[in-house]
Amino acid sequence: MYKYSDFNNKLSQGSGIGELMQDLGSGLEHARRMNLEISMLGGGNPAHIEDMEKIFRDRWKFLSDKETIINRTLGDYSSPQGFLEFREKLAHYLSRHLSYPLKASNIAITQGSQSAFFMLLNSFAGAFSKENTFKKILLPLVPEYIGYADQGIQDGIFTSLAPIVRSTAEHRFVYEINFPSLENCLENESIGAICLSRPTNPSGNLVPKDDMNRLLNIATKHKIPLIVDNAYGYPFPNITFLESKLDWKPGMIQVLSLSKLGLPGLRTGIVVAEEEITSRIAEMSSILNLAPGNVGCLFIEDWLENDQISEYSNNIIKPYYLQKSQFALELLDHHLQSNIEYSIHESHGALFLWLFFPNHRYTSRQMYEKLKARGVFVISGENFFPGLSTDFSHKKQCIRLTYSRNTEEVIRGIKILAEELSL
Amino acid sequence: MYKYSDFNNKLSQGSGIGELMQDLGSGLEHARRMNLEISMLGGGNPAHIEDMEKIFRDRWKFLSDKETIINRTLGDYSSPQGFLEFREKLAHYLSRHLSYPLKASNIAITQGSQSAFFMLLNSFAGAFSKENTFKKILLPLVPEYIGYADQGIQDGIFTSLAPIVRSTAEHRFVYEINFPSLENCLENESIGAICLSRPTNPSGNLVPKDDMNRLLNIATKHKIPLIVDNAYGYPFPNITFLESKLDWKPGMIQVLSLSKLGLPGLRTGIVVAEEEITSRIAEMSSILNLAPGNVGCLFIEDWLENDQISEYSNNIIKPYYLQKSQFALELLDHHLQSNIEYSIHESHGALFLWLFFPNHRYTSRQMYEKLKARGVFVISGENFFPGLSTDFSHKKQCIRLTYSRNTEEVIRGIKILAEELSL
Repeated sequence: MYKYSDFNNKLSQGSGIGELMQDLGSGLEHARRMNLEISMLGGGNPAHIEDMEKIFRDRWKFLSDKETIINRTLGDYSSPQGFLEFREKLAHYLSRHLSYPLKASNIAITQGSQSAFFMLLNSFAGAFSKENTFKKILLPLVPEYIGYADQGIQDGIFTSLAPIVRSTAEHRFVYEINFPSLENCLENESIGAICLSRPTNPSGNLVPKDDMNRLLNIATKHKIPLIVDNAYGYPFPNITFLESKLDWKPGMIQVLSLSKLGLPGLRTGIVVAEEEITSRIAEMSSILNLAPGNVGCLFIEDWLENDQISEYSNNIIKPYYLQKSQFALELLDHHLQSNIEYSIHESHGALFLWLFFPNHRYTSRQMYEKLKARGVFVISGENFFPGLSTDFSHKKQCIRLTYSRNTEEVIRGIKILAEELSL
Repeated sequence: MYKYSDFNNKLSQGSGIGELMQDLGSGLEHARRMNLEISMLGGGNPAHIEDMEKIFRDRWKFLSDKETIINRTLGDYSSPQGFLEFREKLAHYLSRHLSYPLKASNIAITQGSQSAFFMLLNSFAGAFSKENTFKKILLPLVPEYIGYADQGIQDGIFTSLAPIVRSTAEHRFVYEINFPSLENCLENESIGAICLSRPTNPSGNLVPKDDMNRLLNIATKHKIPLIVDNAYGYPFPNITFLESKLDWKPGMIQVLSLSKLGLPGLRTGIVVAEEEITSRIAEMSSILNLAPGNVGCLFIEDWLENDQISEYSNNIIKPYYLQKSQFALELLDHHLQSNIEYSIHESHGALFLWLFFPNHRYTSRQMYEKLKARGVFVISGENFFPGLSTDFSHKKQCIRLTYSRNTEEVIRGIKILAEELSL
């Protein structure tokens, strides 16, 4: 056994996202080999949508004959910020959709949005020696994406706020940002940035436009950026079931991804921000990764000027997930209604349903273990509350369930879930 | 202007590798647009070898019809350590070539070897609170790869040793490890790992097998790993001009890459190490990147069992670079001999020539600027000596020149170099 640095110990100590990715990768491979029946309702792997798969394969085939393009894509490093030509095309597309005249220099391509967040979160939180302070990332609404939780190279980089829980119907609720708490937190703590995913992973919440504007104004007042994780959101893949348009404005960092379009294997993230930020991302990228990968950019390059990527998102991807979401909700109501106390967050986007079991005899961790033992993978809810120091009943009684797997898996998983939790 | 953390300031402060990648990416794009004549002898972009490009394009085409494979490669996250099936195939291949029974668990796939080194260097250097110490990476022979220099998330993670300079012929020399200094350093400093590239980027040095064994024994005695960067080395792409075989043994971390095969756009690195290390790499990868990209693995997957990848390396790639290297050396001798004092490191591998201009009126930094002004990009030598505190004449009088660009660029570049330095 070697000796490891604090950095290594911090990042190898076992993380929610590590467990998730292990379940997702090894769990699936193991099941495939052993011919086991499982329901992988844990991970965030996007669905294999046949129409999109065909589009991707056709794109691959189309590129086969493009000698120069292939030679360059495989054989050249891009600059650390990404190929200029691609960023120019993307800037035109985004300017139209985000209602702001964005330039190529406002864009930095990264090795996936996870990598972008590693850089961003550690840039706006942690030790600030010049200011003689330790700043934190404020998550204005938890539960929030599990993948952030362990990204700090230092401990304790998050502070977060429990939401207001508003009942919307029988067995349904939404989370809302508690703005008085937020203002209070910003007055009393040293905050480097505000960060949220929209739609929220895991809850499927879509923070309303007015609240987004309010957040941006507050962030700007405090001279800190508002980081918005659009991995599932507008303008692509736009897995949102309410009006979701969000303009870019100075003071905002939007992070996009190709993963939920159906291309997670290409590891492509996109940061849209002021130039002082994108240029720092580029500097960091060169040190961490030399340059981003090229294939993701090549894949979508021709779908920008003609808005094809928006059409795929709105006409194929969004309807697919909407139907899946409604199906899973009906199924849950059918199987749970009679014998379990439960409530589900309104499904306004992303790939997940967020289930709350008040007063249940199992903690969410126990639910995870019980279900895993029967080949049903979900994510235990307690991983989604980084930086929350107050009591909040949802912290230990929720699970995240991926509704986007194939129908048989979802049916099987939900049946077993209903059985296990009512036993 | 926002406030940035120490992490950001450390990694955005302007780095040798950032400048290099900017020159390489933006410099090339700018020149392409403006139709400028330039000689890009700075970067580490692998050559566009026509035979290899054809092989890659054929591979792309071959995969076009493989529906299931394409769907999976584009549409599934691998586990953070990389697809098990691929790692098993790779383990078989590597076991044959590295003379050790390696398992899939000894392998971790990363987003390029740069990303692997970011994780490795920061895992074995920096603050070790448990041991109440600050450890460093020992570079046993500098000049060493520019890309390491800024990878520390903390300052001062390197300590390095000036080599013994042995003259081998007129205008030729090699560097050799100063073992007494090395032993002395290990006794007196707190060292977390020994690290070197083989062949060495920038010098083209190939540390002899006996010295490698000696290094491993010393590292093992001190209970620290020996990290070997094979980016240009054995078993692929094997851009080496002497016998280069290197066995893997416990205590060693070998890092391989697909970039210099000609696939830098696919960002694929490979860590071969003891399981306690690969599992930590996987944990860190999940937090930093979720998972590595899949396309690189897919590209070489069928070239392992049949040793095709070794054949490509030894029969196409190695001869190509050898010829280029000899051509550039002859050209340099021809243009420099008459009027400049110079010496060149023996070219035993990698893509570079390392030129020493003793007693020259320009520093290496001035040479870089003079040449850049005339459209000739090289790398200034002083960037390659991280952690060297002693005086060493080569530190300010060397430049790295990429010999692997097309013939016209190399001829033009070397002519201008001879002009500028003899002015």
